[in-house]
Amino acid sequence: MKPGGGSASRLAMVPRYSRPEMSAIWSAENRYRIWWQIEVFAAEAMGKIGMIPAEDAATIRAAYDRDMLGKIDIDAIDAIEAVTKHDVIAFLTWAGEKLGPERRWLHQGMTSSDVLDTALAVQLKQAADLLIDDIDKLLDVLKRRALEHKLTPTIGRSHGIHAEPTTFGLKLAQAYAEFVRNRQRLIAARDDVATCAISGAVGTFANVPPSVEEHVAEALGLTPEPVSTQVIPRDRHAHFFATLGVIASSIERLATEIRHLQRTEVLEAEEYFSPGQKGSSAMPHKRNPVLTENLTGLARMVRGYALPAMENVALWHERDISHSSVERFIGPDATITLDFALGRLTGVVDKLIVYPERMQKNLDRMGGLVHSQRVLLALTQAGLSREESYALVQRNAMKVWESDGQLSLLELLKADPEVSQRLSADELNALFNLDYHFKHVDTIFDRLFGPSA
Amino acid sequence: MKPGGGSASRLAMVPRYSRPEMSAIWSAENRYRIWWQIEVFAAEAMGKIGMIPAEDAATIRAAYDRDMLGKIDIDAIDAIEAVTKHDVIAFLTWAGEKLGPERRWLHQGMTSSDVLDTALAVQLKQAADLLIDDIDKLLDVLKRRALEHKLTPTIGRSHGIHAEPTTFGLKLAQAYAEFVRNRQRLIAARDDVATCAISGAVGTFANVPPSVEEHVAEALGLTPEPVSTQVIPRDRHAHFFATLGVIASSIERLATEIRHLQRTEVLEAEEYFSPGQKGSSAMPHKRNPVLTENLTGLARMVRGYALPAMENVALWHERDISHSSVERFIGPDATITLDFALGRLTGVVDKLIVYPERMQKNLDRMGGLVHSQRVLLALTQAGLSREESYALVQRNAMKVWESDGQLSLLELLKADPEVSQRLSADELNALFNLDYHFKHVDTIFDRLFGPSA
Amino acid sequence: MKPGGGSASRLAMVPRYSRPEMSAIWSAENRYRIWWQIEVFAAEAMGKIGMIPAEDAATIRAAYDRDMLGKIDIDAIDAIEAVTKHDVIAFLTWAGEKLGPERRWLHQGMTSSDVLDTALAVQLKQAADLLIDDIDKLLDVLKRRALEHKLTPTIGRSHGIHAEPTTFGLKLAQAYAEFVRNRQRLIAARDDVATCAISGAVGTFANVPPSVEEHVAEALGLTPEPVSTQVIPRDRHAHFFATLGVIASSIERLATEIRHLQRTEVLEAEEYFSPGQKGSSAMPHKRNPVLTENLTGLARMVRGYALPAMENVALWHERDISHSSVERFIGPDATITLDFALGRLTGVVDKLIVYPERMQKNLDRMGGLVHSQRVLLALTQAGLSREESYALVQRNAMKVWESDGQLSLLELLKADPEVSQRLSADELNALFNLDYHFKHVDTIFDRLFGPSA
Amino acid sequence: MKPGGGSASRLAMVPRYSRPEMSAIWSAENRYRIWWQIEVFAAEAMGKIGMIPAEDAATIRAAYDRDMLGKIDIDAIDAIEAVTKHDVIAFLTWAGEKLGPERRWLHQGMTSSDVLDTALAVQLKQAADLLIDDIDKLLDVLKRRALEHKLTPTIGRSHGIHAEPTTFGLKLAQAYAEFVRNRQRLIAARDDVATCAISGAVGTFANVPPSVEEHVAEALGLTPEPVSTQVIPRDRHAHFFATLGVIASSIERLATEIRHLQRTEVLEAEEYFSPGQKGSSAMPHKRNPVLTENLTGLARMVRGYALPAMENVALWHERDISHSSVERFIGPDATITLDFALGRLTGVVDKLIVYPERMQKNLDRMGGLVHSQRVLLALTQAGLSREESYALVQRNAMKVWESDGQLSLLELLKADPEVSQRLSADELNALFNLDYHFKHVDTIFDRLFGPSA
Repeated sequence: MKPGGGSASRLAMVPRYSRPEMSAIWSAENRYRIWWQIEVFAAEAMGKIGMIPAEDAATIRAAYDRDMLGKIDIDAIDAIEAVTKHDVIAFLTWAGEKLGPERRWLHQGMTSSDVLDTALAVQLKQAADLLIDDIDKLLDVLKRRALEHKLTPTIGRSHGIHAEPTTFGLKLAQAYAEFVRNRQRLIAARDDVATCAISGAVGTFANVPPSVEEHVAEALGLTPEPVSTQVIPRDRHAHFFATLGVIASSIERLATEIRHLQRTEVLEAEEYFSPGQKGSSAMPHKRNPVLTENLTGLARMVRGYALPAMENVALWHERDISHSSVERFIGPDATITLDFALGRLTGVVDKLIVYPERMQKNLDRMGGLVHSQRVLLALTQAGLSREESYALVQRNAMKVWESDGQLSLLELLKADPEVSQRLSADELNALFNLDYHFKHVDTIFDRLFGPSA
Repeated sequence: MKPGGGSASRLAMVPRYSRPEMSAIWSAENRYRIWWQIEVFAAEAMGKIGMIPAEDAATIRAAYDRDMLGKIDIDAIDAIEAVTKHDVIAFLTWAGEKLGPERRWLHQGMTSSDVLDTALAVQLKQAADLLIDDIDKLLDVLKRRALEHKLTPTIGRSHGIHAEPTTFGLKLAQAYAEFVRNRQRLIAARDDVATCAISGAVGTFANVPPSVEEHVAEALGLTPEPVSTQVIPRDRHAHFFATLGVIASSIERLATEIRHLQRTEVLEAEEYFSPGQKGSSAMPHKRNPVLTENLTGLARMVRGYALPAMENVALWHERDISHSSVERFIGPDATITLDFALGRLTGVVDKLIVYPERMQKNLDRMGGLVHSQRVLLALTQAGLSREESYALVQRNAMKVWESDGQLSLLELLKADPEVSQRLSADELNALFNLDYHFKHVDTIFDRLFGPSA
Repeated sequence: MKPGGGSASRLAMVPRYSRPEMSAIWSAENRYRIWWQIEVFAAEAMGKIGMIPAEDAATIRAAYDRDMLGKIDIDAIDAIEAVTKHDVIAFLTWAGEKLGPERRWLHQGMTSSDVLDTALAVQLKQAADLLIDDIDKLLDVLKRRALEHKLTPTIGRSHGIHAEPTTFGLKLAQAYAEFVRNRQRLIAARDDVATCAISGAVGTFANVPPSVEEHVAEALGLTPEPVSTQVIPRDRHAHFFATLGVIASSIERLATEIRHLQRTEVLEAEEYFSPGQKGSSAMPHKRNPVLTENLTGLARMVRGYALPAMENVALWHERDISHSSVERFIGPDATITLDFALGRLTGVVDKLIVYPERMQKNLDRMGGLVHSQRVLLALTQAGLSREESYALVQRNAMKVWESDGQLSLLELLKADPEVSQRLSADELNALFNLDYHFKHVDTIFDRLFGPSA
Repeated sequence: MKPGGGSASRLAMVPRYSRPEMSAIWSAENRYRIWWQIEVFAAEAMGKIGMIPAEDAATIRAAYDRDMLGKIDIDAIDAIEAVTKHDVIAFLTWAGEKLGPERRWLHQGMTSSDVLDTALAVQLKQAADLLIDDIDKLLDVLKRRALEHKLTPTIGRSHGIHAEPTTFGLKLAQAYAEFVRNRQRLIAARDDVATCAISGAVGTFANVPPSVEEHVAEALGLTPEPVSTQVIPRDRHAHFFATLGVIASSIERLATEIRHLQRTEVLEAEEYFSPGQKGSSAMPHKRNPVLTENLTGLARMVRGYALPAMENVALWHERDISHSSVERFIGPDATITLDFALGRLTGVVDKLIVYPERMQKNLDRMGGLVHSQRVLLALTQAGLSREESYALVQRNAMKVWESDGQLSLLELLKADPEVSQRLSADELNALFNLDYHFKHVDTIFDRLFGPSA
């Protein structure tokens, strides 16, 4: 028996953060269709081995092939469930009415979880496939924009403080590499969760032999669960939802980057702002990174679903049903939200307005401090100890820092006799060349996109 | 601007785990009504201080008093939002059309968050009031059943192993005390979150003076937020949702107790099983604790919402909107689920089938081992050291243990000369008296329910 | 029996993030001293009611008063525990050797948890008192610096984008108010967790009457636990650690604010940078907000401890010991880390270098856009509809925005005939007055600090 | 600069829950040795390409080969760090003193994170290898005991209620399969985290070419990080720690199973109880499943570390240091605790005392109800509809249920004319045969262990 009366036919989700294709996976319609497939394929397999009459199995299969169910009458099934208080029985009763006496062979020797757990595996597989697709689209956009800005200079920042030059393309290339990893993780998680169990009340195959499970698994594109115990073990699902949490965290990372870049004082990039859009009811001048802020919040939610999924693993003995209510929430909520978030992020990156001049301006604003390490190395190579070099550079760098970039490090160094006796003006000039920093960008891009890109 | 197109007017929740009264709090209807109250009360306050014309404020207030809004046309508001992409502006546009030129004074000097955050505070307060009510109902049922079984003997178990006798009423009394604490925590959390902010774009009251905030706060039963920064600080909400997580954990505790009691081998209590109910599609004999298993899962969800609520605290500068998507989920999901869970738990306790004879049978099955500590103490008082006493009791206890309760500890002790030389048969008999353990039950009940109960 | 051999006498913590006073609370020394107090006070109470000989109770108490334990020999106790595999018995054996035959009365009728749980309550109370102290110190510093910068103008930012002017004092005042709330929450959490249970194996007081519990509770500054079940119920601890998580989140908020302010492009404030400190081994010019970044990470840890604390609530029946290992971690880790973090944050705020000129410069960089809302309101009051006003302001604001603050909103408005026919140059000038935004700062400070501040 | 003064040389962990081999990985000694390897291998690679003098590189390498560091003087390094407030510089200063002037080439063009992050990768790889070893040992024990009890009948339970027969070997086989999956996940997580970055201040290889990274990676058994940004991206670590959380949850599952089996009323298996061990200071008869309860708590901790690891992903721009404090905790805490837990679980399973007679007795106690489904199917096959069969079986099953297993389902069915007219006494007898349930156990074992087992 399943707890809770009423219908399972409505979706759990925030409509604002959902897209139709993923939502459809979690619709009652889709779930019932998968249940029907499982029952039909199982009957087919039972017919083969003579567990039920072959002709009756054929009749059932034929009914499936001509789409016997037609439009699924969810209200009718709900009405039956209100009496039986059991969702699978309710569905089978409704579907059975469309068959003749062969209906008796449906669900033979099976237990509800055979249907429920295998169906959940199909839904999670469908969801994962859609999410992999989402990642592919994101990767396409990231690659295109990374290549576009492969050599657009921008300041790299550690601790929010200017460090050394990098390129905007490298920022996006890093995101690309991160989502390539997430894609691999998701494939592993999908394969982990895509198993089929038709093994009966405690998983012993007492009333239905393993060959039925194998047949249904193959027909659905799943692998047979090696040892089930009425249910498919929940470590698989824990791994799956934890993986979604990791992907969500990567979304947050890129969203946070964009939020930073759009800050008033930085303004190196902006979310696309459509004409006519209002940023604030009170302040007409506002153009806010609301999409990426929103993604930050959505990431928190998806991440939060990993914990209850892990708590679901330790079911009692062969199974208890505590996992079920959790999965009714996080099954749809985590996948729908992540699908929406990946789509939104793809749109943000696709249409991101990039300001290369502003990047250059910011890069220049520290009076050349970003080249300090290079000077340090040159001094070392000119014979000073690391400590002496560090002190020489730092005493000039601090003056530039305190001038808020009004002073020029290059000029100060030229004027510092202890420096100029070791490095000529020409040598110093050469140390302040931006291209120096970009000489290996090609290597990195080759690593990611191959030499052709 | 708020992210996401589409309507905010549909609910995020699993219908199976929701009840109408709590769901209504999170309906678009309720939210718009609260927005309207805030705008009207603010206009009223502005009229008082001459910030807007007094007669126009009076017109607006009169419109409110005669329920100008009537039935709220959510589709119309959605249609406006699809253009403006701003929910508060969309609502004000729709509502303003029902007014004359005084509509211009609506929202004067206010910012969207003044409305949104104050409205959320009202919704959370309404939700908390309902949850407090839920707890009151649960407390009533727990008290009634605790008194009913005040002196029903049952074995107390530590580590799942029989320890010493207690009463079933004491088990329920503990749950009662726990929910009294949860009630107090929830009141504190409600008061924490029930604040009103009408303080403008960065909380300086630049365009609307504090007196407006004070007026609106009083009219809505809130307290003014001492320092807001466009938004109400999210530590309040974090505290609120963390408190719901604690309450959910208490629900899990009592649910787990009942699940244990219903185990086949224990069977000291059972969830009510209605005639005609099917426990399993495969196994007709099953009567499963599915409601409390379900509560265990729901507790995992509510607990999981505490984390994103805490992550919401560190908004950037005066505010970013990352909290918003999180709250669209957890606002309804946490309160609706907890409301449902409290209601379900109340029903389970109310109708719980208790088997006192089975409790007695289980209590007796260890051959009197549960009295071992008392013998230990008596031997100590008869002059043995603690270590000697322990050894004497243990050597007899182990025999009983290994006989699986077929041997009687009392008889073995009587037959053990080292024991019998110190404690007579009568003295030993007296040590095996159950009432000895219950002499302070009254004291405990008095602590909880007062001397009259 | 406690799981795990070896010693409980060493601390779990990252030394880098701990301070001695809090660490001392979690030392084996302190724990044993509390155990000793519990045993002595319990014996004293038992002596009063004749449960044990009054003179023996007096002997024990006298031993306590002359500090019989002296220096606690942790290695000796460890050695005993290695044999008994039971920590309380090991301690009692060690301590008992210093007494005469009255040692037999120690722990009479008590169970280990009476000692362990009550001792944990004392430790958590001590820890909470220290944390409250920490918050008091932070509040002092926040108040001082808030008053110092009460009227230091700075730009308020929503979504990281310039919004309207505020003051740096208000930013700190908000943090002050937040920690006042955290202080109240912590007091409530401390009182929640500060209970005493001396109630025996399943909480029935079978072998030790409630009066002993009351005496020990009073002597230790605790309240008696109304219904214990061998253990003190863990909802209390869940509430406690969840509260620490909320406080940590507030620390993260202020830390994040400072990290933002120190960004190269913003640089309105900086963590104190001591002469001789090196920011980077590679880049001599770096001055990084490493303390507040560190606090951000520490907040993640403290927050993460809330979940296992909540999972601890649902112990099996009267108790299982799964909570114990969790508490061995989070007891010290959460309190020591939070203590360290509060101390570090206090130091950061205390010595924070504030750059008011830079704040003014940033405030001015948007060409006056921050005054846009005020113009909007003035146009509305001059007779335009809100929509018309919004459009007028926005078309000028967008030009300023696109000029990156090179154009002046004030000048553009003066030159816009549709604006100038409604607002004179003088009127427009007046709308760009910063003080307008600060007129209620006093009110807010009065709310927080009282009228005298 | 790294935050926090003091030493990084002491371990964060609860000694009670740690084992020496894993602890050693997290010792300062091991960390410094890895740092030294990274610096030496990098110098070697730089020598090859002429970035530093080849002979100096050779001198450094030779020093390494003769173990120049010898015993690492952690106190000396700490003392230097107290001045420099920078851990890598402190170490290099100490190590450099043992070299001649070639010391100047150490760390050339590198940044601290090159060393820190690569070293962390090595430590996590070492930890993962140890954990994989732990799992292998657990798998060995699980396999041995699964084969031992391959056909030991026991009742399978869903919802804590007797369902149908299974074997104790199948319970262990399920655990085996689960840890095979965990092993695969851990290998994937290890490979994910085992990358090397020697890419400079913002990952551009400005001052050190990719060939150095490749050389160091190969020497350490790591793969080069395709795009680093001063740091190795933290999605790798998030995946790693989330995987540990999943494994911990599987530990909790098996621990929970054993806790259930040891309950007084069930007592089908027990943790090994050594002679002389004391279960309770108060109750001499207790034998508690404290090891598995302890494992339950440890699982909560390891699971809880997944969240902060995920929050670490969204570092600001090219990096901030907020991840560092988190990793100082969870790096050792998660791996040490999981290592300990795997070892403890292996011990528990290895020495688990199994009571087959008690399993049989429990299996029989429901009066044959466990065979009810089989009767249901037989009736269906005898021509009744599923609904009719269900009703017939249920009405007899309920009588047995209410008799608490005193009545026999088989006898009642024989006496029920509506049953007996369809199934003869012999046919009914045959339906109550236990072996029927075990006919596919071989198949399942073959799936797992191969046909030879």
